[in-house]
Amino acid sequence: MKGIFNNTYLGARESSGPDDLVLLGCPLDATSSFRGGTRFAPESVRRASWTLETYSPYLKLDLEDVLFRDEGNLELRQGDLGYSLDLIESASAEIAGRGGRALILGGEHLITLPILKAVKGVHGPIQVIHFDAHCDLRDEYEGQKLSHATVMKRVKELKGLEIASIGVRSGTRQEFGELVQAGSPHELAARLKRREPVYLTFDLDVFDPSLVPGVTTPEPGGLFFNEIMEYFRVLQGMNVVGADIVELSPDYDTTFVSSIAAAKVAREILMLMYLSKKGQARG
Amino acid sequence: MKGIFNNTYLGARESSGPDDLVLLGCPLDATSSFRGGTRFAPESVRRASWTLETYSPYLKLDLEDVLFRDEGNLELRQGDLGYSLDLIESASAEIAGRGGRALILGGEHLITLPILKAVKGVHGPIQVIHFDAHCDLRDEYEGQKLSHATVMKRVKELKGLEIASIGVRSGTRQEFGELVQAGSPHELAARLKRREPVYLTFDLDVFDPSLVPGVTTPEPGGLFFNEIMEYFRVLQGMNVVGADIVELSPDYDTTFVSSIAAAKVAREILMLMYLSKKGQARG
Amino acid sequence: MKGIFNNTYLGARESSGPDDLVLLGCPLDATSSFRGGTRFAPESVRRASWTLETYSPYLKLDLEDVLFRDEGNLELRQGDLGYSLDLIESASAEIAGRGGRALILGGEHLITLPILKAVKGVHGPIQVIHFDAHCDLRDEYEGQKLSHATVMKRVKELKGLEIASIGVRSGTRQEFGELVQAGSPHELAARLKRREPVYLTFDLDVFDPSLVPGVTTPEPGGLFFNEIMEYFRVLQGMNVVGADIVELSPDYDTTFVSSIAAAKVAREILMLMYLSKKGQARG
Amino acid sequence: MKGIFNNTYLGARESSGPDDLVLLGCPLDATSSFRGGTRFAPESVRRASWTLETYSPYLKLDLEDVLFRDEGNLELRQGDLGYSLDLIESASAEIAGRGGRALILGGEHLITLPILKAVKGVHGPIQVIHFDAHCDLRDEYEGQKLSHATVMKRVKELKGLEIASIGVRSGTRQEFGELVQAGSPHELAARLKRREPVYLTFDLDVFDPSLVPGVTTPEPGGLFFNEIMEYFRVLQGMNVVGADIVELSPDYDTTFVSSIAAAKVAREILMLMYLSKKGQARG
Amino acid sequence: MKGIFNNTYLGARESSGPDDLVLLGCPLDATSSFRGGTRFAPESVRRASWTLETYSPYLKLDLEDVLFRDEGNLELRQGDLGYSLDLIESASAEIAGRGGRALILGGEHLITLPILKAVKGVHGPIQVIHFDAHCDLRDEYEGQKLSHATVMKRVKELKGLEIASIGVRSGTRQEFGELVQAGSPHELAARLKRREPVYLTFDLDVFDPSLVPGVTTPEPGGLFFNEIMEYFRVLQGMNVVGADIVELSPDYDTTFVSSIAAAKVAREILMLMYLSKKGQARG
Amino acid sequence: MKGIFNNTYLGARESSGPDDLVLLGCPLDATSSFRGGTRFAPESVRRASWTLETYSPYLKLDLEDVLFRDEGNLELRQGDLGYSLDLIESASAEIAGRGGRALILGGEHLITLPILKAVKGVHGPIQVIHFDAHCDLRDEYEGQKLSHATVMKRVKELKGLEIASIGVRSGTRQEFGELVQAGSPHELAARLKRREPVYLTFDLDVFDPSLVPGVTTPEPGGLFFNEIMEYFRVLQGMNVVGADIVELSPDYDTTFVSSIAAAKVAREILMLMYLSKKGQARG
Repeated sequence: MKGIFNNTYLGARESSGPDDLVLLGCPLDATSSFRGGTRFAPESVRRASWTLETYSPYLKLDLEDVLFRDEGNLELRQGDLGYSLDLIESASAEIAGRGGRALILGGEHLITLPILKAVKGVHGPIQVIHFDAHCDLRDEYEGQKLSHATVMKRVKELKGLEIASIGVRSGTRQEFGELVQAGSPHELAARLKRREPVYLTFDLDVFDPSLVPGVTTPEPGGLFFNEIMEYFRVLQGMNVVGADIVELSPDYDTTFVSSIAAAKVAREILMLMYLSKKGQARG
Repeated sequence: MKGIFNNTYLGARESSGPDDLVLLGCPLDATSSFRGGTRFAPESVRRASWTLETYSPYLKLDLEDVLFRDEGNLELRQGDLGYSLDLIESASAEIAGRGGRALILGGEHLITLPILKAVKGVHGPIQVIHFDAHCDLRDEYEGQKLSHATVMKRVKELKGLEIASIGVRSGTRQEFGELVQAGSPHELAARLKRREPVYLTFDLDVFDPSLVPGVTTPEPGGLFFNEIMEYFRVLQGMNVVGADIVELSPDYDTTFVSSIAAAKVAREILMLMYLSKKGQARG
Repeated sequence: MKGIFNNTYLGARESSGPDDLVLLGCPLDATSSFRGGTRFAPESVRRASWTLETYSPYLKLDLEDVLFRDEGNLELRQGDLGYSLDLIESASAEIAGRGGRALILGGEHLITLPILKAVKGVHGPIQVIHFDAHCDLRDEYEGQKLSHATVMKRVKELKGLEIASIGVRSGTRQEFGELVQAGSPHELAARLKRREPVYLTFDLDVFDPSLVPGVTTPEPGGLFFNEIMEYFRVLQGMNVVGADIVELSPDYDTTFVSSIAAAKVAREILMLMYLSKKGQARG
Repeated sequence: MKGIFNNTYLGARESSGPDDLVLLGCPLDATSSFRGGTRFAPESVRRASWTLETYSPYLKLDLEDVLFRDEGNLELRQGDLGYSLDLIESASAEIAGRGGRALILGGEHLITLPILKAVKGVHGPIQVIHFDAHCDLRDEYEGQKLSHATVMKRVKELKGLEIASIGVRSGTRQEFGELVQAGSPHELAARLKRREPVYLTFDLDVFDPSLVPGVTTPEPGGLFFNEIMEYFRVLQGMNVVGADIVELSPDYDTTFVSSIAAAKVAREILMLMYLSKKGQARG
Repeated sequence: MKGIFNNTYLGARESSGPDDLVLLGCPLDATSSFRGGTRFAPESVRRASWTLETYSPYLKLDLEDVLFRDEGNLELRQGDLGYSLDLIESASAEIAGRGGRALILGGEHLITLPILKAVKGVHGPIQVIHFDAHCDLRDEYEGQKLSHATVMKRVKELKGLEIASIGVRSGTRQEFGELVQAGSPHELAARLKRREPVYLTFDLDVFDPSLVPGVTTPEPGGLFFNEIMEYFRVLQGMNVVGADIVELSPDYDTTFVSSIAAAKVAREILMLMYLSKKGQARG
Repeated sequence: MKGIFNNTYLGARESSGPDDLVLLGCPLDATSSFRGGTRFAPESVRRASWTLETYSPYLKLDLEDVLFRDEGNLELRQGDLGYSLDLIESASAEIAGRGGRALILGGEHLITLPILKAVKGVHGPIQVIHFDAHCDLRDEYEGQKLSHATVMKRVKELKGLEIASIGVRSGTRQEFGELVQAGSPHELAARLKRREPVYLTFDLDVFDPSLVPGVTTPEPGGLFFNEIMEYFRVLQGMNVVGADIVELSPDYDTTFVSSIAAAKVAREILMLMYLSKKGQARG
């Protein structure tokens, strides 16, 4: 019978090669301080993807030429943070271990910690490109070491990672003291080491909340869509070994535009990762 | 890897027996006269189902004991009504033909026509229980013979079907002249023939729009949830060979309660169909 | 050229007879204490009317048989209360003076005062049937004598009017001391004097806010749609010489159901007034 | 200077007597399974209260005669459940210890556990009247013992409390096996022991979601406002030593009606507690 | 009586000269692929226009000096595409035939086809300036030749028209191959032939969805308001013989800003057309 | 007991010095012409402030170092404009008279008139920096001299004030004739007199409505957040003796981003005023 589910991401295949490219949902929604709802994000991004074209005029590539699989969502336990983080880490390790690359749809930003532990375990030193409105460099938040507000501090402690942040406009004085800003696309290009793998962590609140209001902590003064695309153009040709898109909260996205923006970012990142694989294969 | 999709209906199995019970989405959204959006309904019902318990205190049954499969959505072509109706008919015929029963999630009400063609082809004379705010008995609507506003007229023309309507409160004088109302739950019980198969077509606008505003044509003065449950209690023990739930338009359901109500109706209907199968097996 | 405006009320004629039935918008939005927006109500009721059928199964009448005209909206000055109330009074007087009957779409409840002054000037003693959640019997509100919260006190002072209230559930102890409640539909029937004209003032917050949230001051514990229809059935055969529907605030009606309920009430009241005219003509 | 804050509950005094009646916010928002946001509830109830009258036509009492104080909100740590529950318990113990009575505005339902520990410590055996759509009798939920879904199980384990539930329509088969339902208002009246103190825990999802959609887990088939008032009438004259109103999630309350309903319930409960104090003083 | 309708566009006259400027609504809403609702657009633009001033600081013109008429909406049959397109074509031909110019408010983008057929019939070769996020150059969409997604392909086939597109950022690889982009305002100025008539087709999704989310297919990365004004400045002095504004879907415009933006674009286009007429008269 | 109210602005102290810095709400909501609701603004700004950090990366200052008090809201009478304006003037005079500075949260723009009367009375000639989308220079609006649409005309008539406007893009031809535009941040810097006190009146509709839709009259084509910050940087070091933020209408702010933007502007203005006090103390 010709029955289908429309709820995989646009253009995903049912199967792909062994060193595959995958999309995976990690709907962690545990440590929000202002407003939550990130658990509904992966489904919303998938639904929104169907309003897009498979062709990207930015990268002049077509998703139809990009072999990738949508693996659905990890089955987390919202009340059991340790269990959830472990599951995310082991799933990430499995994908990286078999030579795969994952674009992970959060969920809240804390998921970047277990993913990077796993990816670093396989790939060694990595350049982390961090799109965010917030520093996320607190040592502790509301008495917690593990939080969306401390995640980049924890990531920093993993050692061997070089972090460059883009779009940050909120934090404590101390966090800004620690923060390494990537600067303009041009400056980012100058800073990147061609031979070292790149990991992208994309907190959607890096966008101006005029375009992307549906995040847990909107912060005015952010980047517009085409500015993000300029950064992505710089990343073309880099070896992007993993990525995440986090902090979408669909219930606050009254016009659905936040989900569409997230889906469009996902399309471009999938293409960047596909180009990386091809580059690696050739390289 | 422990990856899952949360977007099947609560409690659905990956496989079930040969004379199986299935859930199938038919997101037809083609002939709306006031406002559309029914194409998004099946996904919304599935998502909403996860807020419910698997146990029903109404029927004292648990979905965990009900073997059913979620077959996803038919891949319709919104712009090609003939193709879409044919696809719905052939899918319905295939399920009925193998002894299965389908609860079909619309989509607009017009889907009931091809489904009933198929179900009648397999089961012969059927009692159609029609929950709706509207007669849907126009002969033509905006110049069209096939429309959500004419569907029960077309169903009536199939012959051999006995239709009893519940909750109707809108139509032309002529439609009300043709309409057969089922009356109270008690009167419905008196009218039902125990031995003849039953088909349920459930237009969600039968509910009062205070509870279910997210439909294409809300009509004040409708039924409340517990009143519907009383009708369902009457249907317990009947041989329900098929059913549909139609006209949900999630974009107008600003509080998500319409989708939750639809999901709860779906749970109860799945149970009614399960009891039918058991009854048939024993009978 | 076949151009039309869809923004008259469903079924309105471009012209009608000399002792005509008219619909008129009075979008006064000046004295709201909690939230405003009633100025947008008449257009919203007109738009909503197009989702209804012209046939009423309650009164078994069709709007197509009811000759009425939609006169648009009075051009009020929101900042000049005196001017606005005068304009409403003179417009009402003109309609009543030529033997016409008007269903006036507010706007806030204060419009009932100038309308009743005019209608009383033509018809003499009148029975006022007052549907409302609130007493509206304060002598003064926020230092004002003329307010949506004092309107029934001012109406009472006009003398010669007999007021019976339905659905009231909010007020001060003193207001409840003054209030005359109509009681059940049965009790209303007993109280009505057949030979004396009736004026209906319908504050939409009489409805339970589950059905009609889009009002300026929603008050839980209200009436449901079918309960209102029972009161209307009692009014059939009475000489309804005028009516208003007030306090709809479309910007708070996130699902459009409040506007639809208002439009449906308007349809029934137009029919009650039409029956009155016919009755008078015959009588 | 004549500056004021409008954000205490309507009619609250700045100070009151030593055996006082207080309103206290406990915005715990930690263990939601479907959607969160209960942390915003106390402010929303306070804001909504200003649309109400101080006079209750149900109890024929005026808040202006009820001496009570609004103590603001406890400063919880969302990420530190143990700390938060301890703070709620000690604040509750302090109020009860000085002969006071508190109406506590949640936050999520889990707050009932520390409150009842404290209240029971002072008052001994208590009759707990439990308004809710859900049993909340799970032993564990998502691996947690302390959750909004297990709170009544934990309360039950405190011993010496007699629980009677009203409006429950969702749970597992096992939870329904454990549940003690109060039945109709008449049956509740028969069951109540006049001399034993009463505690009210009011989960707003007991209401039908047509009226109160803004809760974390809406469940169709609930009670309407006037049905709740009938239960409250039965509680008049009982010695109500404490109460809570929980699970309001204002961000999902698109029309503000849920908050208004919560505020109206709060007004009635404050009056019930005031009558209790007066009764005790006299008794 | 001083009754008026507020629902014509701001500043419209009841009558104007024989070679007139008119506003006409064509609420076609038939071939939407993602979400519909464009049938409600003309009324929403009219209502929004009243929040604007009649004076434009961009063109330093006042609508009060611009003689134009609002002809209301064509009475289309949503279910009968052929009938509807014919009606649009004949109405357009009538206006153009009598020397008039029409700004047509859609409805969906497909209306541009019949309008251009008519306008071309009267004016011969035309420069079409196409504002849009999408190429709309598919040959077929969901099996249909006539669709909002194929409209510019069909327009291209009319021959004799020169199309230049602005703001396009979505399409298939093949569509981008066919697309002629106008480039910057400067480049557009260079490209325009002074003596050849211009037709403007303005799909509102050309705007970034941060400003205009209320369209059927929002696409991030669009133009901001002042960028559009720069293109309009270039068009000043051209002979604009017709225009349309399409794809507004008010039900997705949760803040009403999309409708206001559409109304402001309409004001500027009316002025451009008025200047054209004056220029032609003088020329 | 550790009870607190969260509803003062982030970082406010319970008391501060005698020549203090204060935040004061003036929720006037009386003369709106299109849509109202500004009375809810001060509470919404306070709530939104808690999502911000106390540290500003723009001014490199921390609110924790800024001593200020939140004095709550003035108790206005919406129906008595004279009383309300007098109360605002006397409260402003009292603060200015004791050497204090107030950031006043409106309410509608008309509040600027009584505030400036008071501030001018104490400080003499003042430079008024006026952020707004509209001229507000009408002499009369809807027959009223005192209106949000005439406020800058009335302010101008106070004499001795020098007004420079930023962001204006709507008005009549005559208003634009009168308007003095400040120009770019650079031009503003050139125009400012270092030794003369500055008053800031910040109408939130100066922002583009993509970021701040929740105002009474949104006008496309406005400023983005970082553009405003550039103007603020110019104001650093000036003697800012008072300020207001007006026209927020939270009920139209469906994503809460407008309130967050308002709160962020408030943080920066508080810091500008704090720097002024420090500068004055030293100077």
